[in-house]
Amino acid sequence: MSAPYQANAVLVGRKDTMNYVLAAIRLFTEGASEVIIKARGKNICKAVDAAERVRSTLKDVEIRDVKIYSEEIEGEEGRKRRVSAIEIVLTRRE
Amino acid sequence: MSAPYQANAVLVGRKDTMNYVLAAIRLFTEGASEVIIKARGKNICKAVDAAERVRSTLKDVEIRDVKIYSEEIEGEEGRKRRVSAIEIVLTRRE
Repeated sequence: MSAPYQANAVLVGRKDTMNYVLAAIRLFTEGASEVIIKARGKNICKAVDAAERVRSTLKDVEIRDVKIYSEEIEGEEGRKRRVSAIEIVLTRRE
Repeated sequence: MSAPYQANAVLVGRKDTMNYVLAAIRLFTEGASEVIIKARGKNICKAVDAAERVRSTLKDVEIRDVKIYSEEIEGEEGRKRRVSAIEIVLTRRE
C-alpha cells in the first residue's frame, strides 16, 4: 500500500540538478504530499535550484519550510569537519 | 541616532565566506537586532555557510527564517534568465 503522507527525501549529490528535479517530481506524481530535498556543502545551491524548478513545474507545489544547519562529518584519518546543510520541504497544496 | 531594529543586509558575492561572516558580526556588534544574508546562484552555499558561522560565533544569534525564491536577471544582449536566490534572516535572541 502506498503511504501518501510519508516524508520522501531527495538527497542532492554530484549529478546534474535535473536528476533531482525529476526525482522530486516523480515522488509527487506517485502520490507523495511532501518531498524533502536535502544537501550539504557545495550541493546546497543545487538543492535550492532543484526546489525552485520543481515549484515552477508543479503549480500546486509550494515551499513549506527551509532549514539550514551544520553537520559534523568524518573525513580522512578520522578528522572531523563541520559542513553546512539544507533541508527544503516541498508540499502539495490541498 | 542608531536604528537597532533596521533590517541590515549582507549581500554575498565573490569574496571569501569569511568577509560576509565578519560583515554580519560587525552589524550585530554595532547594535543590529536582525541581519539578512542574501545570495544568488552559486553563492547560495556561501551564504548558508556564512550564516552557520555567524550563529556558531555569536551564541545569542539564531536563524529566524530562510526564504528561497527565483529572480529574473538580465544577461548580455538583454536576454533574461532565471536564477535561484536565498534570504537568511538572523536575529539576536532577546
